[in-house]
This record gives sequence, structure tokens and C-alpha cells, in this order.
Amino acid sequence: MTALWEPEAKYRIWFEIEAHATQKLADLGVVPHSAAKALWDWWATNPAIDVAAIDAIEAVTKHDVIAFLDWVAQQVGEEARFMHQGMTSSDVLDTTLSVQLARASDLLLADLDALLAAIKTRAEEHKYTPTIGRSHGIHAEPVTFGLKLAQAYAEFDRCRARLVAARAEIATCAISGAVGTFANVDPAVEAYVAEQLGLEIEPVSTQVIPRDRHAMYFATLGVVASSIERLATEIRHLQRTEVLEAEEYFSPGQKGSSAMPHKRNPILTENLTGLARLVRSAVTPALENVALWHERDISHSSVERFIGPDATITLDFALARLTGVVDKLLIYPARMEKNLNRMGGLIHSQRVLLALTQAGLTRDDSYRLVQRNAMRVWEADGALNLLDLLKADADVTARLAPEQLDQLFDLGYHFKHVDTIFARVFG
Amino acid sequence: MTALWEPEAKYRIWFEIEAHATQKLADLGVVPHSAAKALWDWWATNPAIDVAAIDAIEAVTKHDVIAFLDWVAQQVGEEARFMHQGMTSSDVLDTTLSVQLARASDLLLADLDALLAAIKTRAEEHKYTPTIGRSHGIHAEPVTFGLKLAQAYAEFDRCRARLVAARAEIATCAISGAVGTFANVDPAVEAYVAEQLGLEIEPVSTQVIPRDRHAMYFATLGVVASSIERLATEIRHLQRTEVLEAEEYFSPGQKGSSAMPHKRNPILTENLTGLARLVRSAVTPALENVALWHERDISHSSVERFIGPDATITLDFALARLTGVVDKLLIYPARMEKNLNRMGGLIHSQRVLLALTQAGLTRDDSYRLVQRNAMRVWEADGALNLLDLLKADADVTARLAPEQLDQLFDLGYHFKHVDTIFARVFG
Amino acid sequence: MTALWEPEAKYRIWFEIEAHATQKLADLGVVPHSAAKALWDWWATNPAIDVAAIDAIEAVTKHDVIAFLDWVAQQVGEEARFMHQGMTSSDVLDTTLSVQLARASDLLLADLDALLAAIKTRAEEHKYTPTIGRSHGIHAEPVTFGLKLAQAYAEFDRCRARLVAARAEIATCAISGAVGTFANVDPAVEAYVAEQLGLEIEPVSTQVIPRDRHAMYFATLGVVASSIERLATEIRHLQRTEVLEAEEYFSPGQKGSSAMPHKRNPILTENLTGLARLVRSAVTPALENVALWHERDISHSSVERFIGPDATITLDFALARLTGVVDKLLIYPARMEKNLNRMGGLIHSQRVLLALTQAGLTRDDSYRLVQRNAMRVWEADGALNLLDLLKADADVTARLAPEQLDQLFDLGYHFKHVDTIFARVFG
Amino acid sequence: MTALWEPEAKYRIWFEIEAHATQKLADLGVVPHSAAKALWDWWATNPAIDVAAIDAIEAVTKHDVIAFLDWVAQQVGEEARFMHQGMTSSDVLDTTLSVQLARASDLLLADLDALLAAIKTRAEEHKYTPTIGRSHGIHAEPVTFGLKLAQAYAEFDRCRARLVAARAEIATCAISGAVGTFANVDPAVEAYVAEQLGLEIEPVSTQVIPRDRHAMYFATLGVVASSIERLATEIRHLQRTEVLEAEEYFSPGQKGSSAMPHKRNPILTENLTGLARLVRSAVTPALENVALWHERDISHSSVERFIGPDATITLDFALARLTGVVDKLLIYPARMEKNLNRMGGLIHSQRVLLALTQAGLTRDDSYRLVQRNAMRVWEADGALNLLDLLKADADVTARLAPEQLDQLFDLGYHFKHVDTIFARVFG
Repeated sequence: MTALWEPEAKYRIWFEIEAHATQKLADLGVVPHSAAKALWDWWATNPAIDVAAIDAIEAVTKHDVIAFLDWVAQQVGEEARFMHQGMTSSDVLDTTLSVQLARASDLLLADLDALLAAIKTRAEEHKYTPTIGRSHGIHAEPVTFGLKLAQAYAEFDRCRARLVAARAEIATCAISGAVGTFANVDPAVEAYVAEQLGLEIEPVSTQVIPRDRHAMYFATLGVVASSIERLATEIRHLQRTEVLEAEEYFSPGQKGSSAMPHKRNPILTENLTGLARLVRSAVTPALENVALWHERDISHSSVERFIGPDATITLDFALARLTGVVDKLLIYPARMEKNLNRMGGLIHSQRVLLALTQAGLTRDDSYRLVQRNAMRVWEADGALNLLDLLKADADVTARLAPEQLDQLFDLGYHFKHVDTIFARVFG
Repeated sequence: MTALWEPEAKYRIWFEIEAHATQKLADLGVVPHSAAKALWDWWATNPAIDVAAIDAIEAVTKHDVIAFLDWVAQQVGEEARFMHQGMTSSDVLDTTLSVQLARASDLLLADLDALLAAIKTRAEEHKYTPTIGRSHGIHAEPVTFGLKLAQAYAEFDRCRARLVAARAEIATCAISGAVGTFANVDPAVEAYVAEQLGLEIEPVSTQVIPRDRHAMYFATLGVVASSIERLATEIRHLQRTEVLEAEEYFSPGQKGSSAMPHKRNPILTENLTGLARLVRSAVTPALENVALWHERDISHSSVERFIGPDATITLDFALARLTGVVDKLLIYPARMEKNLNRMGGLIHSQRVLLALTQAGLTRDDSYRLVQRNAMRVWEADGALNLLDLLKADADVTARLAPEQLDQLFDLGYHFKHVDTIFARVFG
Repeated sequence: MTALWEPEAKYRIWFEIEAHATQKLADLGVVPHSAAKALWDWWATNPAIDVAAIDAIEAVTKHDVIAFLDWVAQQVGEEARFMHQGMTSSDVLDTTLSVQLARASDLLLADLDALLAAIKTRAEEHKYTPTIGRSHGIHAEPVTFGLKLAQAYAEFDRCRARLVAARAEIATCAISGAVGTFANVDPAVEAYVAEQLGLEIEPVSTQVIPRDRHAMYFATLGVVASSIERLATEIRHLQRTEVLEAEEYFSPGQKGSSAMPHKRNPILTENLTGLARLVRSAVTPALENVALWHERDISHSSVERFIGPDATITLDFALARLTGVVDKLLIYPARMEKNLNRMGGLIHSQRVLLALTQAGLTRDDSYRLVQRNAMRVWEADGALNLLDLLKADADVTARLAPEQLDQLFDLGYHFKHVDTIFARVFG
Repeated sequence: MTALWEPEAKYRIWFEIEAHATQKLADLGVVPHSAAKALWDWWATNPAIDVAAIDAIEAVTKHDVIAFLDWVAQQVGEEARFMHQGMTSSDVLDTTLSVQLARASDLLLADLDALLAAIKTRAEEHKYTPTIGRSHGIHAEPVTFGLKLAQAYAEFDRCRARLVAARAEIATCAISGAVGTFANVDPAVEAYVAEQLGLEIEPVSTQVIPRDRHAMYFATLGVVASSIERLATEIRHLQRTEVLEAEEYFSPGQKGSSAMPHKRNPILTENLTGLARLVRSAVTPALENVALWHERDISHSSVERFIGPDATITLDFALARLTGVVDKLLIYPARMEKNLNRMGGLIHSQRVLLALTQAGLTRDDSYRLVQRNAMRVWEADGALNLLDLLKADADVTARLAPEQLDQLFDLGYHFKHVDTIFARVFG
């Protein structure tokens, strides 16, 4: 991803745009065919791009595109003077940004595919691993660890679809001249270059490609980043000392902090939380870039010079890091079970309540019966078990047989639709 | 739009969700058919929703959904106790938010359609009205006023497509219970309610519908708002005293500020600029809402209680206001022409330069010839005209005949592809 | 706080500004003294402000300030026509916003004082209550609960100082006319009104008070909100089922969720987390409001009409809510102790390591000795205790006597500077 | 500014912190005096920092601070092993960030001083240069160009005061150990190091310095950036083709765009507008960094690694660029006068209206007299002059003598308090 934003990569795209345009101009009879041929012949030699040399010319001309054209002319010779006919610097610069963001999107999509694959593998592995579901950080009802990951999968799958849409937003080509009227360059040139580069034409440009497209693009990256934060936050929670249901991978030989074997910090997911903030920070300036003055001002440019590489490189890094975390995540089913039982079976109290009601007790009486046992369990902080107490409570057993009670404490009741959900998510 | 966010509208959606769910539960044999029938029979009487009464109950129960169910039970009677079987408050609340945001989207789409229609009408009206194109606020080359509006049309057309996608993001239904496992409610209920309400099922929920959906939704509103700001800014610029190529409508009898007839301020578009900032301000908190803890926490709720109505109502108002502004915009072609000629024809100097080169002069000599005349025009600040000077310059006329020169100053040269662009934009 | 932003409160401030200005204009001989006297005489009758009547006039005049002046004239009579002499609407509107924000600040400062008092009380109460300090959510070394609160106190004390500075930022008065030149109103009027209202004069205004002041104000509110989020997040963590070192208050009779006595959710602090996002959302639009065009445009106005009341009312509510949470927070020292010991004394392993080194072992040997015992404790997940194992390890006891080992496990070692820190924070 | 954020600068600060700490530890008798002496003796040789060598060690140890300490030990020898006694990495890292941000602030304050000096010089130069004041982009009443700059001066002077406060926010030193209890390091060390580095002690830290400080710091930078945007926007407006009252400097020999001498674009101020967006983009992530978990998590770190250098370097660059723009700004008083008169004197119509009223006409009659002349001027679009028409209107001259009319058109009336305002702003 970093390479994509290096000067050399940029110059290579510049050349392709200019050479394709020259080709079409030749087909239109505006410039000689020999000009296009000279450019492509040179390009076929796979020439190195001498960034330093171009920089040296720019130091004199104070104009980046002219400096590049001069340098190409030095390499290709006389015929190169037909390049850039009727075009404006922005035609090259904006279309190049489109190519860069489209290629960045392809990398990010590949990242997402890898992440989705990693999540899916772990989700299937733990499809029926019981764990406690929590609302407000408080134990609620049982779920499976696979369900947690299915939710993450569905979320990143949506992110994937959003990124595909965002890519389409910015994959356009504009070669329309100083104010977008095609006064000095035929629209056919734009159409040809677009096709060659795998872009759509920009229906109406005004020297620049309109920045609502880029705003939508960076806003989408911000949403993806927020989803990264969500899964990272989940893992950070799971790795807490008191919870410890999962941990970022550490190699067997790896030392924890000096003598404390428990000191394994979720630093990767904490880092991902910070990276999410960074990617999101591109959203507001991208939105502020939309309202350019009249046919264009150049205020967007300094913003994009930062957020273009920063947001895509950071997101690429973050997605890869998260994939690694998921892939190697240490998952502790035994601890999950321990936590699940931590409340001594209180998580099943609602089912008991319902069963007593169905067995003929009033709701109030049922409630009282359950509550008096539940409170004892709660106050014992782990030393007592609701099922045992209920079985020892004659008022309860008068209504519910021991095997009925056992059934009410069966986790399977909660997991009967796991398969349905998996089918929805993974198809 | 405001009505959509009133308590009454909310309660009506709550009822529909509960009644549809009861219907399906009856079909599944979980509750008696008479329960569903009682609900719908009552509803068929088109009953008023007594918000105050529900509030009064909530003041006691401290729980909004329970208060509502109690009130309905008071109206419907005994049978109502079968409502809400196996469901969780969030099933109702989150699905209701989906319905509200989907309906809000429909209103916003209608707003956009009206705006697009208004822009199109004015664009066609001024398809060939010449005006100066400006880059960096500086005169560049001629465009037409219709082209300016075509760009706005294309931008809002993209906004429309984005909003359609954003609507799909949030139009989902979740009825999956306390931690999303469907432990106590069959997935078929969710599917039925979704269908009745025109929603998709949420493939995997965790008591709540995942908030990446809402983040994407509000991010999209932020992009639309930024496009509003762009067109508003354009109009503000055009209404400047020195430019005055267009003005927000004022009625013929309307007084400007006391005795100053020129004091007509673009207050509507300035207001739109501020409203754009407000709508955008919903984006960051919506992004921050994504990373809920575990299966859910309720931190998103207070945020949405504000940004849900605020962002949609503000955007609705802004789109309608902008439509009014465009619809009635006072457009001054004469002033546009005056401004276009303000530079004494300097905007054509590049074409003259090119023509001299093609007529056989070196580029340097051509440049010198044009420049010496151009500088005189520039320094005269409107008192001289480049075409006249060129015709009077023997070195020029030695190469270019007067009628050739006239042709170089022809605006038509710049407008030859207007039709192509219009076809791209308006189809 | 809400009352402050009601129309009536606004009109009362408008009157005071106009009446004070009239007073000074009379002193300067510009208007008759009888005019000022008539205004103040009427005001002395403590008249009700008829908002509906003013609204009705505005519906005709389409100008809020003129409508108000007309209504006052109806009440006061002939003499009222001297009001507003040489002034501009913005003189009244901007100065009023200053008064409102200054008064809002006073309420927020009182909120902060109450919060600081609540934190201090609880901090002193738990100055030496041992609890585990956590980095990365992982147990690190012991702290006291009082220290946690001391940190919160210091943070909100800084917030208080920031709010005092923010108040000074916006407490200015501008009465300088249409473009700030005092062309039609003497600067002495501004000075007098400022003094009467407890404001500073705005050194140079341009019809409006510059918006960098308001940007700084709302940015400061955003920082305060973030500090609220920090303490709220701490409490949410502490209330997790597995941690349960503190809980938001619930009354003795209060039912948890049906039969589950543990289902006490930290909904107040979750709500505070959301409210923090809302208050912060005012920061960006306030920053975007700074760059008004030339001497003024009115884009800031719609933004402020929302964020003025929303941010201050929300912050006021949030501070009061947080104060209530802290004040009544259920704190569980026994559970803190249990969690502190959860690792079987591993948190003391570093001190043992150091002691062995000081007793003459190489660092490597010391590490090996500690590590082999620590690993057994860790793997036993709560069933073994490091101190016991060390005392049973001959290689250890060869170097450290039992009473030395006991001392190494003394919490007091960690708390010897608590008093110093408290002195720094609470003075 | 860039140098400040280079690895070498960072390592130099690390060394100073460690060496000062060792010094104090020696004074306290914890480590030998020879250790501190060895460090400072080596430092006195002004040794180069071998960043590559440190990086190589870090590649092995995976810990930046340990790698640095190892490298120093290699240089200094045996005695270096006493460094870092009882300290935590964060003690070094966070205090270093404080030093960096404090030094960055000093550079930014120097930038602001230079900017203020440049603005003051130009303000005094144009203290009485008349120009039109504009509200809503529409001509309002006369101001002077000096007043515009006085407003900018006052705004940046406030920014200076804010930056001084922001510097104080982050200039603190924390050396308090793993959870901030000073368990293994005496508070006297912190106090000593703070004093040596010109910092305040952090009253209560929790391994880290609390991030509300940094949030306030970056929020302040965001406000300064917005003020930059305001002045940049003003200049962009003034440079518009139709206004052209000021221009960014271009050297006499500099070519405008090919043959078009008017094509001088305000690209520096457009660039500044974009840079302002970038600096502001640091505010939200800095606010999100505040709510670290418990005693610390490391999510803030990646954020600060970007926004620390990016925001300060960008703001430094922007302030310097703006200073250059102001310093060399081409100011066109003749054009200002031309624009001022563009309305044919309509900007004076209100004074005429008032004078007629004072001369005994009713307000309605006065209005009618002025309006009928004003409308002719307005419709002539620059070809007629209000003063001439009024002098030729017998109904007017019956009330006001020609010399009285002349006086009503005197700009001096508007500028009588310029001196007062300058005294307020410049002292």
C-alpha cells in the first residue's frame, strides 16, 4: 500500500494517462501516430523513473507536471512534445488520484477478504462454544463464541460491500480541460483513457473531479475503521484479567512482563482502537473539501496529500493486524464455561420463572419462589448454585420435577437457532 | 418530517410491530389467534394515541415499552396480554428506529427529486448562457450557466443514489431476543414482521441492530449536506456585489435594507451553509456509536435521540430551502456577459497564442506578441479590448486576418461539447 | 439551564441591553433622559414578557429585533422610540449570546463544584481502600480507590479552570454598528453596557463578535465532556459482572431485571458516554463557524441556535448526573480485595525478584526461582498462592526469611505516597 | 519544527530525563553518584546519537526504551546500569512528549509573534485606507483596510494567549511508576526532573499523564487553525478578479499563466484553507483519546504518533506561510476606492435619509426622496452618482445645501473612531 503512494508509482500513472491520451489524440488525427508509438516503445523498455531528476527539474520549473513532461521528453526525444495536448494538469492529477484510490481499494478489499476468511474459520471452530452474552457489561443470557464472530463477519461483509461502492465512487477519469468544457480536447480522449485505466468517465467535471466522491470514499473508510474498533474492543474486554476468555497470541517462549506471567496486554487491539480514531479523522476534512469555490480552488489538495496515503495505509495496516489477531487468537472455552457458571446458574432464573408459571403458579408466587433462591446464590458470590437450591426447595419441586429443572438449565435451549443464524451469515 | 419523530408516530410503529408479531406468534400456535385479532380490530377503529396517558404510566413503571403495552392493554383488554411474547424492548425500539429512518429517507429522496427537477429546469433554461468559469476565484475560460447547474445536478443525483443505498443500510428488522439467539422467539416472527413493514431481516443481531449501519447512514447524510454547502457557496459568490450574476429571489415590492437598494443578502444560502455544518456534526458521534460493548451497551441511545430527528429534519428543511432558492433564483445573463468581458478579452489570449504558433511563428515570438497587447489591456482595467489591439498590431495582422481573429474570440468554440455533457448528465 | 435558552430569558436580556444603551445615550445627550427613565420605570414593574405577542409582530415584520422593539414601544409608549439609536441588530443578538453563554458557564461551574465535592468526599472515604491498578485492562500493581478518585478530581479541577477561561473568552459586549466602526454610536455606549452586564468590551468587532471566541468555548465543553466519558467508562468497567468493584446506586426495594438479581446495568454511565459524544459533536461546527466572510456572514447563526442550548444543557445534565452517580456509588472494598488477590499474589512477584537479587542471586537465577513458582500459581487459576509456594521453596527461603517474604507482600509498600498525592490534589 | 520530532531529538530528551533522574537518585542515596557523573561526563562530550544502532537493538529486544538504555550502556559503560531505577517506560515517554509539545509551543508562539508583527505593520500602513465593509458579501458601509487587519491582529493575539495556556496544559512531568503510586521511585525524583526540564510536576498520574491535557492542547491548535482559515479566506475573497483589492505577492518577472496576465491565483491562501482542515482533524481523535481504560491503555499512542508531529508541523508551516503572505501582500488602495464608489455613493444613502429627517421631513417623505434617486443610481450600474442626482433634485436641495450634501458623503464620518479601536488592539 505504501508503494502505491510513492512518487514513482505516481509518475508511472502519469505516464500511462499521458501516453493513452496521446494514443487517442493520434487516432483522432490531432497528433502524429509516431508520437504515441515513441512513448509506448520507450515504456516497453520498462524504464526506471528517475525521481531525483524530475525533482531537480521541478525545482526550476516550479510545476510538477511540466517537470515530469520535460523529463519524459529527455528520455523519449522529439516526439514527446505532442504529449499533454489540450490537457490541464488537473486532468492528470485528478485521474491519478482516482487510480491510486481505486488500487488502494483493491488492496483493502483483499485485506477484508483475508479478515473475513479468518473470522469465518474461527467462527466455525467455535460455532457451539458456549459463552455468556453480556448487555451493559453484565451477564445476560448464553450465546456461543461462534455467534460473536458471526456478528463480526456480517459486519465486515457489509464493510466489504460499502468499500466496493466507495471504490466505484472515486474510480472516474476526467480529461476535460481548464474548466471542464473540453474546449481543447475531445471527449473521446477522456473515454479512451478511462477505458484503458479501468475507470468510468466523469460525466461533468470542472477542471477537477467533484469532491463529494472523495468525501463519500473517506466517510466509508471511517465506517470500516469503526467496525475494526468494535471487534478490537470486544477482544480487549475478553482479555481483561477477570474475564480472560480470549487473548491475543503470544508465542510459547515469550516472556510476559518480567516475573508476572499474567501480564499479557492486548496491545494490538488497543493499537487498533487508536488506528480507528486516526482513519476516522480523515472524514471531516474530506467533507469540508466538497465545497470548492466555483469551478475549483485548490484547498482540497493539501488535505488529500495527507489523508490519501494516511487513511488508506493506516486502514490497510489495521485490517492486516486485525486479521492476524483473529487468526491466532487464543480462545479459552474452559474459562468461558467458568464465567458462564459464575453466577451459579442465575442466568437461567427467567426460564424457571416461566416454567413455574406454566406449571400453574401465579406470576407473583413464581417470582417469589425464584427470587428467594436467586438471592441466596447471588449473595454467596459463587459458592452456591441455583439448580441445587431449587431442587432442595420443596415449594419448587412440588411443581417441577428434578429432570424438568435440569432441562431448564440446558444451554441447548439457547443454541437451537445458531444454525439458522450461521446460514444467514455464511450462506 | 417532524411528525415522523413525534411520540405519536413512534407509538404507532410500536403497535404495528407488536401486532404483526402477535399475528405470527398466533400462526405459530404460541398465542391464541384471538389475541392478534383483538389487536387489529382495535387498530381498525383508528384509535387516537393518548401520549399523555402513556407518559403517566411510564412515570410509574420507569420503562417506556412496558408503559405502552399497559396502555394498549387498557384499550384492547385481556387479549393484549399475549403481546410482546418472547421479545425484548430492543426488538421494538431498534426496529422502530429502522422504520423511522427508512421513512425519513423516503422524504429526503422526495426532497432530492424536487431539487433535481428544479436544477434541471434552470439548467436547460440556461444551457447556453455564457458566463465566466473561475478557478481559484480568478477568471479562467468561458462556461455556460447551464453547465454549472449540470454539475450540481450530477452531484445531487449521486447524492440520491447514496441515499438509496443508505436507506437499504438501515431498513432492517430485528426480533431476536435478549442476546440475539432467538431463544424465546422464533426467527419466523422476525421474518414476518420485516415483510409487513417493508424491511429486511437483520441476519445477526445482538439484542441490538449493529450500529455500523447507522454510522453509514449518518455519514451519507453528511455527504449530502456538504453538496448542499457547495451549491449554496456558489450562489453566495454569485450574489456578491461585485459579481452579481445571480441573486436569491426577493419579491418586487420587497424593500432592501432601508434606502440601499443593493442590500439584498444571500441569507438563505448562508443559512444553508450553517445547516450543512449541523448535519455533518452527526457523523462523528454516529461513528463513535459503532463500538458498543459486547452484545450491547446503551451509550448509542442518547446520541440517536438527538441526531435521529435533528439530522433528518435539518436536511429535509435544507433540501427544501435549496430547492426554493434554485427554483426562484434570479439569474442575470447581462451581468454575466459584462463580467465575462471584464478582462477586455484576455480570456481568449491563449487561443490567439496558439493560432499564431500554428501560423508559423515560434512559440516565443507568439508569446511576446500576445503579451505586449495583453499587458496593455490588463493595465487599462476595462478601458481597452484585446481584439481591437490585436487588429491594430501589424505584427499580428501579418499572420492572422481580422476575421480569423474574430473567430478566435468566438465563445462558441468553448461550448461545442455542452450538448455532450448535458446528454451525459440528463440522459 | 433550559430556562436560560427560553425566548423569555432572551427577551429580558435584549431589554436590558437596549435600556442600558438608552441610558448611556441619554447621558451623552443623544436621546432625552426621559426615554431611559420610561424604560426603566416600566421594567421596575417587573412586567411579563408576552412571547406570543412578539411572535405575532415578527410574523408581520419578519425581523425579530424590530418586533421586540415594537412590542416594548406598545408597553412603554412614545419614549421607547429612542431605543436602539445607532445600533444594529447584531449588537443586541451577539451581546445576548455572550450573556447567555456566560450565565450557562456559571451554571456549569456550579455543576463542576458539586461534582468536585462529591468526588472529594468519596476519595477521602476510600483514601486507603486497596484495589488493583490495571494497565491494558490487566492487573498491574495495587493502588487505592481513593487514588482513582483523586485522579478524577484533579481532572475535573482542570476542567473547572478551563471553563473559567472559556467563560472569559465569550463574555464580551459589542455595540459598534453595521461594520464595527462606531459610525453611529459612541464607543462609550458599548463600555457602559458591558459594565452593567458584567462583560468586557469587544476590542474590535465587525458587526459581529469574532467566532474564534465561541469556537474556543465549545472546544472547551468538548474536553469537559471527554473527561466525563473517562470517569463514566471507569465506572462501567468496575460494574462488569466479573469485576463488580463498584455499582451505580439502586434503591434497596428496586427490582433488578425480573428474577436475575445481578442484572443491575450501569445505564447512567452508559448514558453519560453517549452524552459526551453529543457535547463533543458541537466542536467541529463551532470551529467551522470561525471563517465568516469579510465583516460577517450569517452562516454561524443556525449552528449556534442548536449548539448553544444543546451543548450547554446536555453538559449541565451530564455533570449533574455524574455527580449523582459518584455521590451514591456503591463501592465494594471486599470485592476489590478479592480481585486484588485473584492472581494469588503474583502482583508482588517483581518485589520478590528484586529482593532475591539484592540478597545476592544473579538476576537470571532470581528470575528462574520466581518464575517457576509464579507459573504454578498462574496455572492454578486462583487455587494457589505465591507467598505459600515461595515459603515452601527451599531455594527461596535460603535467601529470604519468611518474615521478609511477608513484608514483600505488604500492600503498605505501595501506599506510602498516597498522602503526598492527596496533598497535591486536594491541597 | 520537524527536527523536534526526529528520532534523534527524542533520544536526546530521553537521555536528559534518565540522567537527571539518576542524578536525583544519587542525591537520595539510591544509586552511586558515580553513575550520574558517568552519564553527564559522556553527555558533555556531545556524543552523536546513533539512531540506526538503537533501532538494531530494538529489533531484538522489541522494546524501544530498553534498546535505548542498552545503547547508552554500551557507550557509557558499567555505571549506566543504574539508569531508570524504579521507573517505567511511560515515565520517559510521556514526559518526553511533554517536552516536545512544550518546545513545539515555543516555536508556534514565535510564529505567532512574527505573524502579529507582520499584521501590525500592514495595519498601521493602511490605518486610514478606505475600503468597503461587507456583510453577507454585499457592500455595507465603509471601513479601513487597517481595521480589517486590526481585527486579524486581535484574533491572533487571542490565539497567542490560548497557546500560552495550552502550553501550560501539557508541560508536566510524570515519574511515578507502573500505576502512579511512586512505589519504587521517590516523588522527589519527579520534582527534580521537572525542574531541570522546565516542567511542572503532574499532581496525580496513573502510569500516564492524563490525556485531557493533550485534548485541550490539540483543541487549541484547532482554534488557531480556524483563525488562519478566516484570514486566508478574506485574502482569497479580496483577490477575486472582480474585487482585486489585494493579491498574494508575485515577483515582477514572474509569469502569470501563459498569456493571461490576470491569472494570479491565491494558491497560498487556498493552501492555508486546506491546512486549517488538517490541523483541525487532530481535535476529534485527541478528544477520543481522553477516556483511557482504568490506569491506562495504549490506544492513545498511535494517534499521538501521527497528530503530535502532523498538527504542530502543519500549524508551524501554516503560520509562517501566512506571515509571508501578509508581509508581502499586494494591497491596492485605488481599487478599494473604485469598489467603494462602485455603487455610485449608495452606501451613503442612509445618512442622507437621516439628514432629511432631521431637516424636518417626515421619515416617509425622506425615504421617498432618497429612494427615487437611489433607484436610478442602482439601475445605471455604475454610470450615475447619488451625490450628483441629489444635488440636482430640487426637493432635496430645498432641505439640504450642496455643502451639507458633500459632508454627508464624507468617509471621515465613518473613521472617527479608528484611532480608538487601534488603541484598544495595539495598545
